Amino acid sequence: VTTRDTAVAREDPAGPSLRADARRNRERIVEAARAVFAEQGLGASLNEVARRAGVGLATLLRRFPSRDQLVAAALGDRMGEFGALVERALDDPDPWHGFSWLVEQVCAMQAGDRGFTEVLTQAFPGAGEFEELREQAYRRVVELFDRAKAAGRLRPDFSPHDFPMLLMANAGVVTATAGLAPTTSPRLLAYLLQAFSTEAGPLPPPPTFEQMTEVLLRFEPPRRDG
Amino acid sequence: VTTRDTAVAREDPAGPSLRADARRNRERIVEAARAVFAEQGLGASLNEVARRAGVGLATLLRRFPSRDQLVAAALGDRMGEFGALVERALDDPDPWHGFSWLVEQVCAMQAGDRGFTEVLTQAFPGAGEFEELREQAYRRVVELFDRAKAAGRLRPDFSPHDFPMLLMANAGVVTATAGLAPTTSPRLLAYLLQAFSTEAGPLPPPPTFEQMTEVLLRFEPPRRDG
Repeated sequence: VTTRDTAVAREDPAGPSLRADARRNRERIVEAARAVFAEQGLGASLNEVARRAGVGLATLLRRFPSRDQLVAAALGDRMGEFGALVERALDDPDPWHGFSWLVEQVCAMQAGDRGFTEVLTQAFPGAGEFEELREQAYRRVVELFDRAKAAGRLRPDFSPHDFPMLLMANAGVVTATAGLAPTTSPRLLAYLLQAFSTEAGPLPPPPTFEQMTEVLLRFEPPRRDG
Repeated sequence: VTTRDTAVAREDPAGPSLRADARRNRERIVEAARAVFAEQGLGASLNEVARRAGVGLATLLRRFPSRDQLVAAALGDRMGEFGALVERALDDPDPWHGFSWLVEQVCAMQAGDRGFTEVLTQAFPGAGEFEELREQAYRRVVELFDRAKAAGRLRPDFSPHDFPMLLMANAGVVTATAGLAPTTSPRLLAYLLQAFSTEAGPLPPPPTFEQMTEVLLRFEPPRRDG
């Protein structure tokens, strides 16, 4: 039994008495939701999740009556990872290094996972424990900002709201360049860290001409019909 | 007859002999596409465009056999406006002021117009004249960058690809905060302009706590069902 299975069992309202085949269905739905949310974001089609899980939509909706509950089950582990990263950043004896390290880690987690990106810039009032975890992580991030300011490295007019701003900006870049121009997101980040700190430093290289051509030609926004 | 009507008539393959009711249909489709693309981006449902135009999907597809052609008709004026802004920026005797003014104007145009945002970071090989206009504007933007570098105000390692990077980043912020936290996009922009220039200056205020709460609670990614 993995940590993931334990978490699933613990959160399941039907508890450990849930029949084995129902539990397998539930796990398949959660795995499918994880993959589909990562690819398409939290607004992805629940029909698509059900199809990939090999269950009917009615079964999915019986297990997860609200989308927030499915999001919480699919992304609970990622939120836990995020919380652990924040704690590790707070343990860094250099508050600025902890701050910039966290920002880099989180932006790297955003790449290839649209669902995670959206989770960090939204609230989930219907998701109980998951929402508490999200709020707790947010409070600890603010502590990290305050320490980096006290150390004189983070500009005093940096606002805690600049963190979701940065995540939204990075999400825009990751969505458009994912897999095609991989230095674009680290480059945006380096620019913003320099702006946050007032201390200039080297930048990652810009994407190549060939990469940007791929981005321009191959990026397809989601198309709902022909 | 407005400029817009002239442009539509000029681009229409059926030319001035197009029957009046067919022309009215075409104009209704273009108007509807303009509104729907602005709200939902270029990947919006063509069924929705047809529905709002009050025509059938078959009529729409007869007029615009490819999505690129519809995009060109709907956003040709905006692309022209963008080209005019670039020329005005090049006329500015202060190259850095011209550069930052253009960036601010374009980011403001992105707010509330998802279609325009996507047009500037994509290519449209199937859109003929429209694509030529896009490429021409891009070449003139690069001239503007070179002048700002020659004036010693834009950092020498700024890449022309940092312009689409900025637009993608701003698109991410605008999509998430549109109408709810209006200072977020100008604030991102001020941070990036400072990082581009190495010269620090004041920032627009961050969004208020109330605004960010609205963003977190009310931002809904596009949901295709449920």
